[in-house]
Amino acid sequence: MTFEAMQKKVATYLDEKRYAHVLRVVEMAEKLAERHGVSVERAKTAALLHDVAKNMPKEELRQAIEQSGRDLEVLTFHHELWHAKVGAIIARDEFGIEEECILDAIRYHTTGRAQMTSLEMVIYLADLVEEGRNFPTVEQLRQVAFDEVLENAMAIAIRHSIQFLASKSVAIYPDSFECYNEHMLKKGK
Amino acid sequence: MTFEAMQKKVATYLDEKRYAHVLRVVEMAEKLAERHGVSVERAKTAALLHDVAKNMPKEELRQAIEQSGRDLEVLTFHHELWHAKVGAIIARDEFGIEEECILDAIRYHTTGRAQMTSLEMVIYLADLVEEGRNFPTVEQLRQVAFDEVLENAMAIAIRHSIQFLASKSVAIYPDSFECYNEHMLKKGK
Repeated sequence: MTFEAMQKKVATYLDEKRYAHVLRVVEMAEKLAERHGVSVERAKTAALLHDVAKNMPKEELRQAIEQSGRDLEVLTFHHELWHAKVGAIIARDEFGIEEECILDAIRYHTTGRAQMTSLEMVIYLADLVEEGRNFPTVEQLRQVAFDEVLENAMAIAIRHSIQFLASKSVAIYPDSFECYNEHMLKKGK
Repeated sequence: MTFEAMQKKVATYLDEKRYAHVLRVVEMAEKLAERHGVSVERAKTAALLHDVAKNMPKEELRQAIEQSGRDLEVLTFHHELWHAKVGAIIARDEFGIEEECILDAIRYHTTGRAQMTSLEMVIYLADLVEEGRNFPTVEQLRQVAFDEVLENAMAIAIRHSIQFLASKSVAIYPDSFECYNEHMLKKGK
């Protein structure tokens, strides 16, 4: 399937607002991939599909995860996290994406994880700092995503996420916690 | 050993400043134990011994943990966390404390953990809000420790700790993370 064909198909899965966000993530992922020497083609594909399950009803998301037999732990956490896991399933089953690295970039785009690939970090960051985001520190994080090496940008981004979640009294998915600790322990004790 | 005899012995392990902190934690633990229906005697004993290893050199702390064969993971985290594990060892071996619940209150006083006992929560909170502490939100937390039921006070305290650690870019010990998530997941998703 060409990128254009995929684009048209993705649009049928999403409402207008979400699809506009997806196009901005594609744009940002392309820039970040170029900046950090990551495959632009893979980054654009992962970005285009990262939120493909975002508008699915909660119960359908639950069913898809249960049927997959993978990432079941996510069901005990906020349903906001579920679409990433189901997005990877749809990308494979309905868009024919076979490259595991692209599927993983979709799968971990909301939580991060320990030992992320460069592609995974590009998608995580692109989603966080795309031009439509407007949380207080977004400009600073956008700058960091371009100015810092990818690992450092990811460290700053995951720290921001942990602080944000704790400020909202929200449970933190273990993958995010492991991602955070990996980066903080690297800096020395 | 009487409480007074223990007090004298603890003083020989600590510098003046640290010992003064310990006495303030004893005082706060007594009040919190009374408030929350926890054994005052156990709370005072755990409070008196909670920092007994605080002034030990880092390498001695490391050796004691390695020899114990327990909590070895703590050695990959900041050495600030080590004294709690060694404190429990000293309380048992040098002060003859046999009650596991007291030893656990010492062992988990800096990190917390999932499924804390009431005694463990009292010691964690007493250490955090004793009258000598002066971080920005301490008065609010002190109020919470008396006004709220123990579980709620612990939830607010561990959330405060996670936010503080993330603001300092410090790795978070898994026990603290599990404690945080347990409390946040209890509140619903």
